[in-house]
Amino acid sequence: MTLPNMHYADLKDSYLFYDISQKVNAYIERNPQSRVLRLGIGDVTLPLCKAVTDALHSAVDDQSRQESFHGYMPECGAPFLREAIAAHYAGRGVSVGPEEVFVSSGASDELGDILSLFDVSNTALIPEPAYPAYVDANVMEGRKIIHLPTDENSGFLPLPDEKYKAGIIYLCSPNNPTGAVFTRELLKDWVDFANRNGNIIIFDAAYEAFIEDESVPRSIFEIEDAKSCAIEISSLSKTAGFTGTRLGYTVIPAELTRNGMNFNEMWVRNRTTKTNGVSYIIQKGAAAVFTDEGQRQIKENIRVYKNNARTLMNALDSAGMKYTGGRNAPYIWMKCPEGLDSWALFDYLLNEAGIVGTPGEGFGICAKEWFRFTSFGKTEDTEEAAKRLALLFAKRRSK
Amino acid sequence: MTLPNMHYADLKDSYLFYDISQKVNAYIERNPQSRVLRLGIGDVTLPLCKAVTDALHSAVDDQSRQESFHGYMPECGAPFLREAIAAHYAGRGVSVGPEEVFVSSGASDELGDILSLFDVSNTALIPEPAYPAYVDANVMEGRKIIHLPTDENSGFLPLPDEKYKAGIIYLCSPNNPTGAVFTRELLKDWVDFANRNGNIIIFDAAYEAFIEDESVPRSIFEIEDAKSCAIEISSLSKTAGFTGTRLGYTVIPAELTRNGMNFNEMWVRNRTTKTNGVSYIIQKGAAAVFTDEGQRQIKENIRVYKNNARTLMNALDSAGMKYTGGRNAPYIWMKCPEGLDSWALFDYLLNEAGIVGTPGEGFGICAKEWFRFTSFGKTEDTEEAAKRLALLFAKRRSK
Repeated sequence: MTLPNMHYADLKDSYLFYDISQKVNAYIERNPQSRVLRLGIGDVTLPLCKAVTDALHSAVDDQSRQESFHGYMPECGAPFLREAIAAHYAGRGVSVGPEEVFVSSGASDELGDILSLFDVSNTALIPEPAYPAYVDANVMEGRKIIHLPTDENSGFLPLPDEKYKAGIIYLCSPNNPTGAVFTRELLKDWVDFANRNGNIIIFDAAYEAFIEDESVPRSIFEIEDAKSCAIEISSLSKTAGFTGTRLGYTVIPAELTRNGMNFNEMWVRNRTTKTNGVSYIIQKGAAAVFTDEGQRQIKENIRVYKNNARTLMNALDSAGMKYTGGRNAPYIWMKCPEGLDSWALFDYLLNEAGIVGTPGEGFGICAKEWFRFTSFGKTEDTEEAAKRLALLFAKRRSK
Repeated sequence: MTLPNMHYADLKDSYLFYDISQKVNAYIERNPQSRVLRLGIGDVTLPLCKAVTDALHSAVDDQSRQESFHGYMPECGAPFLREAIAAHYAGRGVSVGPEEVFVSSGASDELGDILSLFDVSNTALIPEPAYPAYVDANVMEGRKIIHLPTDENSGFLPLPDEKYKAGIIYLCSPNNPTGAVFTRELLKDWVDFANRNGNIIIFDAAYEAFIEDESVPRSIFEIEDAKSCAIEISSLSKTAGFTGTRLGYTVIPAELTRNGMNFNEMWVRNRTTKTNGVSYIIQKGAAAVFTDEGQRQIKENIRVYKNNARTLMNALDSAGMKYTGGRNAPYIWMKCPEGLDSWALFDYLLNEAGIVGTPGEGFGICAKEWFRFTSFGKTEDTEEAAKRLALLFAKRRSK
């Protein structure tokens, strides 16, 4: 008799975005004329930039002609893309070899796949609020989890503590959903903690392109000694609008070893067994992101999203609301007004203002007094939402 | 201290294609003027058909405009593609619902990923010779493996036997590397065996498009009762030349349950946790494969490969060589001439005729007297190789 992986029975049902869409649909049915402003799901809305679509078209043409046709791609990534990504790191002063860069189908795919490198006996330390997949991917494999709640007192940043006995440590900066970013000093504390205890940090850098403060690290490998304790997982989803086009990359330092096993070599073995590489076409499009012209164009898009964030922040400032994020992150993480928890606020904003956000509770129970807005919406929607929010909160305040 | 997944230390080093390329490079260095004919790696050489590249260009255009831009795709596949694949099955008389079809980045990716659904205590039954990743993906997770050798007496087809106590049964038809295909009767025996013992069959149908005998099943779901015991993994890699473009699909019947767990629901949960779906662009290209025009065009390409196979088979026939495959498969599986094992034959063909094939031993020790040729090479190379093979083997025979 085949035994299924019974750890799946331990997964909590994930109804967050399903519940949101049910509520939004019901609202639209009741208010067919209302203009619904969606600042909920963290999905981009601007099209791919021209440097990328030109490269994609050119790659499709390559695949249409025998003399330029590409079959199986190298499993760990095309050399042209691994080199482009390594050069991009070098441009920011981070020394990473092309053979330390692995091309993936996206950070969400990689965050699950990478767990194959770790024994199931490792406990995972997950600061919360967090991207729900960190927890679920570990529950599926039967790992124990230490949930590490963070709050506004630490700016939603987790602090290392010798009492945490965990083999795998998740750090995300800029954070989804809070927008919090690690300082160099705090990230160094975590690196030292991990090296001291022999732990490995999985550093989720999917939002690094939104960092504008020069002092804030965009890669964990900007921190001394990180190469002996960290894996960095990144993505073009938010950097270059690849949420539906799919491409990410992972850095596993050549020197990362534990118990005589080298993680870079293990990942090469994993990829050569479990994949035949990422689509040639998409890798060509991704390489265009790292050209000068590509960088210029993606930064124009990021500027649009950052202006959206600024618009929302100004509205919240004017209404005297408390929030984090927005400055170095695409997310604004707002404290719910007195007397409303995050689901109650969700209903209130939808019904009173036609605005869709994301209840903090969806990212961990510790966040049930907080609420996430994204800056990825259309600018005209974001401006309208900002007006409605300022009015609504000011009115509520004056009651 | 983080404990790595020590099962990686149990993996045998996989030097097959590395060793082959080293030998070929050395040969080229010694014989710089020689025309090397590559019939080794099973990679396609014809470009994508026009219906597909048109659809890919159109999808890139969609991504370049805000009004048609696609962000995150549904994790289990775009409805347009799941429906197209379900309709394709229906056209062959197999009833599969769109919600039973999952879009993947390719069969090789899926063959590893799908193992998440099974407890590590399940033993895997792997008929050999086999695609090496079946074994390695299970070794990585610490599963026990029953290696089931097959030979020419059974036409390289495994026969069910009550003595095999295995939770996961791998079947591949048409087989890589032997080209053997299951009859309906034998596949029904395996389905009955699996249902009787509560096992699950992972049916690798990556080469189904090469079947020309109407009596040979192209899907395990053509067999009665398969929906209660089988998962089918398929791919456009060989069907439509997607080896470097990447897209596959998997059918998990809604009724497939064990121990109270539903495998279709589990896979939905896995995908929604571990992926954000397959690239919109590639899914659009894949959907074009299932249009009437797409089907007509991919069949032209398959005809080219089948003619290549015919050319090689004629040459082997003329030289009195014994082989299987070629008729319903892109692979020709040849018995080594007396006195040469598969690596010796590799060296002999390379040095005497500049021909690159694949030694059977790479697919399992039971295959060390066999040798694989692929029909995916360029036609002019295949024709030249056929001439050289016929001459060489006839000469050897007449000695």
